[in-house]
Amino acid sequence: MKNIGINGYGTIGKRVADAVSAQDDMKILGVTKRSPDFEAKNAVEKGYDLYISVPEREKDFEEAGIEVSGTADELFEKLDLVVDCTPGGVGAQNMNDIYKKIGLKAIFEGGEDHDAIGSSFNAESNYDANLGKDYVRVVSCNTTGLCRTLKPIRDISGIKKVRAVMVRRGADPNDAKRGPINGIVPSTTVPSHHGPDVQTIIEDMNVMTMALIVPTTLMHMHNIMVELEDDITTDNVIDAFENAYRVLPLDPSLKIGSTAEIMEYAKNLGRSRSDMYEIPVWKESINVTDGELFYMQAVHQESDVVPENVDAIRAMLELEEDGEKSILKTNKVMGIL
Amino acid sequence: MKNIGINGYGTIGKRVADAVSAQDDMKILGVTKRSPDFEAKNAVEKGYDLYISVPEREKDFEEAGIEVSGTADELFEKLDLVVDCTPGGVGAQNMNDIYKKIGLKAIFEGGEDHDAIGSSFNAESNYDANLGKDYVRVVSCNTTGLCRTLKPIRDISGIKKVRAVMVRRGADPNDAKRGPINGIVPSTTVPSHHGPDVQTIIEDMNVMTMALIVPTTLMHMHNIMVELEDDITTDNVIDAFENAYRVLPLDPSLKIGSTAEIMEYAKNLGRSRSDMYEIPVWKESINVTDGELFYMQAVHQESDVVPENVDAIRAMLELEEDGEKSILKTNKVMGIL
Amino acid sequence: MKNIGINGYGTIGKRVADAVSAQDDMKILGVTKRSPDFEAKNAVEKGYDLYISVPEREKDFEEAGIEVSGTADELFEKLDLVVDCTPGGVGAQNMNDIYKKIGLKAIFEGGEDHDAIGSSFNAESNYDANLGKDYVRVVSCNTTGLCRTLKPIRDISGIKKVRAVMVRRGADPNDAKRGPINGIVPSTTVPSHHGPDVQTIIEDMNVMTMALIVPTTLMHMHNIMVELEDDITTDNVIDAFENAYRVLPLDPSLKIGSTAEIMEYAKNLGRSRSDMYEIPVWKESINVTDGELFYMQAVHQESDVVPENVDAIRAMLELEEDGEKSILKTNKVMGIL
Amino acid sequence: MKNIGINGYGTIGKRVADAVSAQDDMKILGVTKRSPDFEAKNAVEKGYDLYISVPEREKDFEEAGIEVSGTADELFEKLDLVVDCTPGGVGAQNMNDIYKKIGLKAIFEGGEDHDAIGSSFNAESNYDANLGKDYVRVVSCNTTGLCRTLKPIRDISGIKKVRAVMVRRGADPNDAKRGPINGIVPSTTVPSHHGPDVQTIIEDMNVMTMALIVPTTLMHMHNIMVELEDDITTDNVIDAFENAYRVLPLDPSLKIGSTAEIMEYAKNLGRSRSDMYEIPVWKESINVTDGELFYMQAVHQESDVVPENVDAIRAMLELEEDGEKSILKTNKVMGIL
Repeated sequence: MKNIGINGYGTIGKRVADAVSAQDDMKILGVTKRSPDFEAKNAVEKGYDLYISVPEREKDFEEAGIEVSGTADELFEKLDLVVDCTPGGVGAQNMNDIYKKIGLKAIFEGGEDHDAIGSSFNAESNYDANLGKDYVRVVSCNTTGLCRTLKPIRDISGIKKVRAVMVRRGADPNDAKRGPINGIVPSTTVPSHHGPDVQTIIEDMNVMTMALIVPTTLMHMHNIMVELEDDITTDNVIDAFENAYRVLPLDPSLKIGSTAEIMEYAKNLGRSRSDMYEIPVWKESINVTDGELFYMQAVHQESDVVPENVDAIRAMLELEEDGEKSILKTNKVMGIL
Repeated sequence: MKNIGINGYGTIGKRVADAVSAQDDMKILGVTKRSPDFEAKNAVEKGYDLYISVPEREKDFEEAGIEVSGTADELFEKLDLVVDCTPGGVGAQNMNDIYKKIGLKAIFEGGEDHDAIGSSFNAESNYDANLGKDYVRVVSCNTTGLCRTLKPIRDISGIKKVRAVMVRRGADPNDAKRGPINGIVPSTTVPSHHGPDVQTIIEDMNVMTMALIVPTTLMHMHNIMVELEDDITTDNVIDAFENAYRVLPLDPSLKIGSTAEIMEYAKNLGRSRSDMYEIPVWKESINVTDGELFYMQAVHQESDVVPENVDAIRAMLELEEDGEKSILKTNKVMGIL
Repeated sequence: MKNIGINGYGTIGKRVADAVSAQDDMKILGVTKRSPDFEAKNAVEKGYDLYISVPEREKDFEEAGIEVSGTADELFEKLDLVVDCTPGGVGAQNMNDIYKKIGLKAIFEGGEDHDAIGSSFNAESNYDANLGKDYVRVVSCNTTGLCRTLKPIRDISGIKKVRAVMVRRGADPNDAKRGPINGIVPSTTVPSHHGPDVQTIIEDMNVMTMALIVPTTLMHMHNIMVELEDDITTDNVIDAFENAYRVLPLDPSLKIGSTAEIMEYAKNLGRSRSDMYEIPVWKESINVTDGELFYMQAVHQESDVVPENVDAIRAMLELEEDGEKSILKTNKVMGIL
Repeated sequence: MKNIGINGYGTIGKRVADAVSAQDDMKILGVTKRSPDFEAKNAVEKGYDLYISVPEREKDFEEAGIEVSGTADELFEKLDLVVDCTPGGVGAQNMNDIYKKIGLKAIFEGGEDHDAIGSSFNAESNYDANLGKDYVRVVSCNTTGLCRTLKPIRDISGIKKVRAVMVRRGADPNDAKRGPINGIVPSTTVPSHHGPDVQTIIEDMNVMTMALIVPTTLMHMHNIMVELEDDITTDNVIDAFENAYRVLPLDPSLKIGSTAEIMEYAKNLGRSRSDMYEIPVWKESINVTDGELFYMQAVHQESDVVPENVDAIRAMLELEEDGEKSILKTNKVMGIL
């Protein structure tokens, strides 16, 4: 049983905590928070020991009636590995200022730069390359989504070039401050950073991306066009997606016409926080024509990276040498379809 | 073990099915659907026997790979009570055309008119009055919300007059067809129907309501002003709400600043479909001034009536004579705070 | 021809500039901006001399190809009156740091506190009280909206108590940063500040307000309940609104069912920026019952105060002693219905 | 002065009416409406003679106080050409049932099928081909947007293949009924119909499109990728767009970061209904890399086709033989940049 900690118990952190707790080869020793709120309170109610990042604020927690088990530094001393889910950029700083000094292995999330951390991770694509590593970045929800479906395509056909337009949600569901309320915000740096980020996982993949932000909180949507090297069919692609570990082709008979209905579908599954760990792909959108494959997929920005974090822990702590076995183990425990 | 069926396995129906299944004195014998989709598929995957309302469509279900156990009429024959969750107006028709003919007890939802059904139900307010009844309407999510907090206020102070402005969500989260996308839609019939609907539960309550629709999917919000007869304090009201069975005062230390954060809070609780059965009230909004009480509450339109349906079943089938005992039993099983 | 300047050429400032320019007794000598953008460029294209608030940024304007006529201080020296449309709180500072020192009369907007400025203005309610004043605050869009309809009601009936729930837009239409995208944000300080703000105009009005923010950009909506002293009818109120200068009762035959359609109606009128200077009231929502008046009105947050600014200029510079004459003159020039 | 009528005075119809009225070689003889509302009332207030499509409803118009000049059929008899702005599909029916029978030339909008009408129109691309034609379809807002920018690109470089992802607004600004409120709705038929529709204008253009709907009312956004035959630069493309008649490259110095700010920019221009007839392209998004051009453009769904309708009238009535001259004339009158 390896001792894992979560630094930053927020949108991703709390989900990774639950996913780790559900495994039989690792457990959560504690989680950190900066200030008291309903998330902090819920952490304690769920049985997680809560450590505070800003020791001076202990009184705030007391006043809110939230039990504190110590400081973040005290937690770090007891861990085999920390999952750093702090806001983008803070993780790299923590690596240099804290984790390296005490020799603590750490996972970072997609808000960090690949170059700052040194290694990027996607379970199906490069588990092996991260075996035993000390510092690993689990790529962002969007990059994870692209890797999940591009990998199985490349396995059945060479890929000449990928073009993808990423339609991004404006804010997470619990965020009532950020907009836009009514409007579309283009990322006018074209191609966007998402293409190069895929290359931190699949080096030789030629991916050009454009991105924009729209007024929804539920999921990102990817519109993907793949120039193929080989002569494969639409059915070959559907088969490849059906066989991939964390891709979920949506049959037209399900009548799931929007990201809103995907989220309802996830609610029905009875999972923690009604999450959708898989990448759903609308089956009827998959179409090979003139040597080019088109498809549309959705990405649950809050949860698709969660099982990846579990697998990354296994790779880094060498709990499992075989990536496929780790994926299958994680999937089974988390109920991934 | 009483045999319960759900006619109309949709937003409310599927939740009532799960809530009934969790009890030890009733069980779900089957649910009905008109056409195949992901909801129908999920019903079967969850183990519910699926009966079809339109027998001619059996082939559609077959093609979608969804097992059908029979027709709705076949299901009704086996039941002690049916919970009718069909669209507004259809229930009353079903009562006259089907249920009365075969002597089947039935619960209806808030989309039906009180006069058409004859009796309305809210567990804390009038459980007794519905003991042994054959046809009962569980009032709408909004009326349930109003009853839940007005009842405890009246218990500690006479009420002269209630004024409430109901800010309603435009569509449910899974509905990508209805708007508004950007705009506010007033219900220009003032006072709105919500006031008289409260009187189907608490007869002598003088309630004037105004209603409008806004572009959100998450919850309704009620802005309530109560002219009090007695000289009570803000703290008296908070106490009354803390002691009510399905009201949830939100402490400022939780930093829950919006309906979006309430829904996140509900997700953290780990309940089925991330539902919020209680009526959350912002504690800092509760304020008695000049003999008038002000407060703001939110209503989870998809789920606050679910425990009420369970209690209504108990009352109608006389499984429990004492309303309070039924409420406590339901609350315990459903994890209501 | 009095020389007027606009300090802060933004949402309100640009509209006041156009409204002032359209009058025959005042003109715009210049407007100020802090940094170059499409608003600054448009100001110059429209013929306004542009003065810069941060002299060091002159180069930024040059690079953007936007002609600068001097610094804000240079502009202030030439003016008879400045309309300060800077962000909330900055105006009061400007009054003390700049305007008072050079003896420049100034109008402020609703973002400033009444106490900081000393006098508040609404044309129909207290034009006289502001004759010749040096520093005057035009009250906010919401307070203006409340005064516009409460004044005519009080003129035909005493008012015991007003209760209003203000459903506020989350962000202006041109603001793609602020949310909420999906959720309702209550102002949990109840009563809200809107009631006392009305009292800066109509001293003895007993107004209790509650406020919340919803995901729309178009208009605020007010749900108003007025306890009446006298025995007046719904028709009396409609008449009073029809006769008020800047209130627009919407006839049901127009089929205007939402704020979205009000804005379309405004577009059809062919006015500058498709603005709605009047306070539209849904005629069918007006209802007197049991001595209490109910009605629903909308407020175009970007423009209802614009004619008020013009009238305030006339009062302060004593261009017109009679408030009614100023209102009629402003209305005629601006095409107010 | 040619006599023009508008059949269907709605979103597009009312704009075409105003644009036609502003020309010196054509005028509006009348417009039609099916039922009375604020649009009908405004038509009459603007001085348009109103004819009714459903004669039996004359009383409804009378009751609403809206003057009726006759029936639609009476209007058609007096016209040189009718612009049919009825809902999609109705136009083709009208062509066969009415216009052909009385020998009336007619323009249809993008909701009709190319094959049903026989000829499609975009002023810059194929004015000549429509000279003297009796029945012409002005292509949809999206197809117009694609043609506007693809034509000038093809004029400076051969085009191998175009890929475009069309992010579409969910409803028009005045429509408070349609959603989605929170969610993304993919058009899962991939490629979408937009590609083939471009080919009704530019026959040999290889265009593959994907489309989705998002919760905004303001504009569509197109994400475009063009594989080029020739070796052109980013600057060549910017020049081509600057020289195109109805394309508006947005300079970064304007700081227009979203469709919301484009619409504010349009408001500032002081045009009728704050419309944006041009296709704005974010200049910093224009990027040629590896022989492929990327750019992002917005489309004002309510108005970009309006000047096209004016030009189509000129072509069909042979008021002007030279398309360029017509475009310049229309642009000048409408203030197109």
